[in-house]
Amino acid sequence: MSTYKAIKLVKRPAGSIGPELFEVEEKTVPEPAEGEILIRQTYMSLDPAMMGWMSEDTDSYIPRVELGDVMRSSGIGEVIASKHPDFNEGDQVMGLFGWQEMVLTDGTGVNKVDKSLPPEMVLAVFALPGLTATQGLYGYGHPRAGETLVVSGAAGSVGSIVGQLAKADGLRVIGVVGTDEKADWIVNELGFDGAVNYKTDDLGAKLDELAPDGIDVYFENTGGPILDYVFERMNAHGRIVVCGLIADYTSENPRPGPNWMRIIKKRLSIQGFTMPDHWDKTKDLQAKLTPYVQKGQIKYRAHVLDGLESAMSGLGLFLTGDNKGKLMVKL
Amino acid sequence: MSTYKAIKLVKRPAGSIGPELFEVEEKTVPEPAEGEILIRQTYMSLDPAMMGWMSEDTDSYIPRVELGDVMRSSGIGEVIASKHPDFNEGDQVMGLFGWQEMVLTDGTGVNKVDKSLPPEMVLAVFALPGLTATQGLYGYGHPRAGETLVVSGAAGSVGSIVGQLAKADGLRVIGVVGTDEKADWIVNELGFDGAVNYKTDDLGAKLDELAPDGIDVYFENTGGPILDYVFERMNAHGRIVVCGLIADYTSENPRPGPNWMRIIKKRLSIQGFTMPDHWDKTKDLQAKLTPYVQKGQIKYRAHVLDGLESAMSGLGLFLTGDNKGKLMVKL
Repeated sequence: MSTYKAIKLVKRPAGSIGPELFEVEEKTVPEPAEGEILIRQTYMSLDPAMMGWMSEDTDSYIPRVELGDVMRSSGIGEVIASKHPDFNEGDQVMGLFGWQEMVLTDGTGVNKVDKSLPPEMVLAVFALPGLTATQGLYGYGHPRAGETLVVSGAAGSVGSIVGQLAKADGLRVIGVVGTDEKADWIVNELGFDGAVNYKTDDLGAKLDELAPDGIDVYFENTGGPILDYVFERMNAHGRIVVCGLIADYTSENPRPGPNWMRIIKKRLSIQGFTMPDHWDKTKDLQAKLTPYVQKGQIKYRAHVLDGLESAMSGLGLFLTGDNKGKLMVKL
Repeated sequence: MSTYKAIKLVKRPAGSIGPELFEVEEKTVPEPAEGEILIRQTYMSLDPAMMGWMSEDTDSYIPRVELGDVMRSSGIGEVIASKHPDFNEGDQVMGLFGWQEMVLTDGTGVNKVDKSLPPEMVLAVFALPGLTATQGLYGYGHPRAGETLVVSGAAGSVGSIVGQLAKADGLRVIGVVGTDEKADWIVNELGFDGAVNYKTDDLGAKLDELAPDGIDVYFENTGGPILDYVFERMNAHGRIVVCGLIADYTSENPRPGPNWMRIIKKRLSIQGFTMPDHWDKTKDLQAKLTPYVQKGQIKYRAHVLDGLESAMSGLGLFLTGDNKGKLMVKL
């Protein structure tokens, strides 16, 4: 009888995120019953949002993963056995498959994906990152040609798409990153107008240089000190889209936010959002994205880890910022 | 030749706001030329926004009052001489008349006001306070029956109207005030569901008691520590309308804001606004207000100071919170 591996969350993060939080389990490959399909997962997405799902905090916006449960994640797979009328062997499918090599399901929440699309592109552009970028930028950022947009986590899976969409729309786009290599990539490969390295640059001076007319839209993916510097450069009627605050997920002492006076003086709008509130818009968001992809305006890079077990240490890359592009695991 | 008095701003506030910032001038009453009117101002409005107009900060949203200029304010007056086809002697009019007993003008920005309306009601409800309350509450607060709204500065000119509108719309309304007398007024006269005295109550415990289901809308008029307590009780999809932060206008060390994590977790929307961006909506906002006034749902109280010169020390009441209702000067 053949087996497959699954990884369960057994401990909640406190300061660090690594293999110590997980346990690998060997399970027997099941047979699909009537109305079920068996999926072999091929690519598994790692996303910063997972930090929230794992945390103790019951105040989170998505149900946390319970201790002892298989870690939650979205992924792509191939149907290898089907007793379900809507799925055939060989179909490429997407869903919340979790950290496991095989998935037995009745098909609920499983969507077929065009086999001609490379799995990396599906996970990097048309799945969570691209949907998040599109909903945040157009739903709340209201970008207008000629304006200046700053995006943090700019070489990340969401930030890189936000910046490229805004650039294609005629905005001046500045990206905030944590390495010179990422700065080089977003400027020279993605066409951003400038990059700020938050670890080495004088943040205020660099923003003044790159955004001499102030900032109209800020797309916040990271948190950390950059927020204060951007905030005090926001123009009248500026929009701040708060999508991620990864710097604070594991912090024991959350940093205070900026003083609110500027919110009145500049009549700022600040909107927090998360994609799970907007799944019903998936088709519309993908339709909005598609022409940009077709015109070659959305480049991506996939940071592919190898093998299921690499996910356990892979998540730590979000905290160090060492991932290059959309993080995923090839199974 | 008869004279009138005008008050000029001669110094910018630094810590305190009082007569030391102003100079009284005696001027000759002019004769209107062709196309002009002479107005005798009868009531002059004092508003917290004046703190911003007087301050050094050139970063403000409205042109500041220059040193040596007559202090800016809105008011009500009577036309006492007219060589203008649109105005007759005896008309009751409104406009940005400034701190002076007489105004000579070509009528630009001067609006006639129904003589049957008491000037106190015009300044307290249909002018800046009511317009601000209406624009903020309906433009950004999106109140829904059954929700809980907290408003700071709740006995103030804007806050008292915000709370009464929300109450009339079926919300649970909690007001934040600084004296027991104000707490008594908003609960027993205006019908609020509860009051928090930010000077004497245990803020967290009191909010927990009065808003057991959390807070859906926060209308911020004051700034100060109450913001942190309200912020951490905001419900999912909560709206925060930032209308005034008077506690910070004269502060040398602006207090930090709350950590932003809750903005994502609860998908909050935070919107700063000031009425000058919305003057073009004046008629619509007054139309929205009118039925509430006609049904007797909007009570107000006017805190009337006596004589032009009382304005100089009157502004200080905003800082101490000693004004009771809409502050104005009877000339």
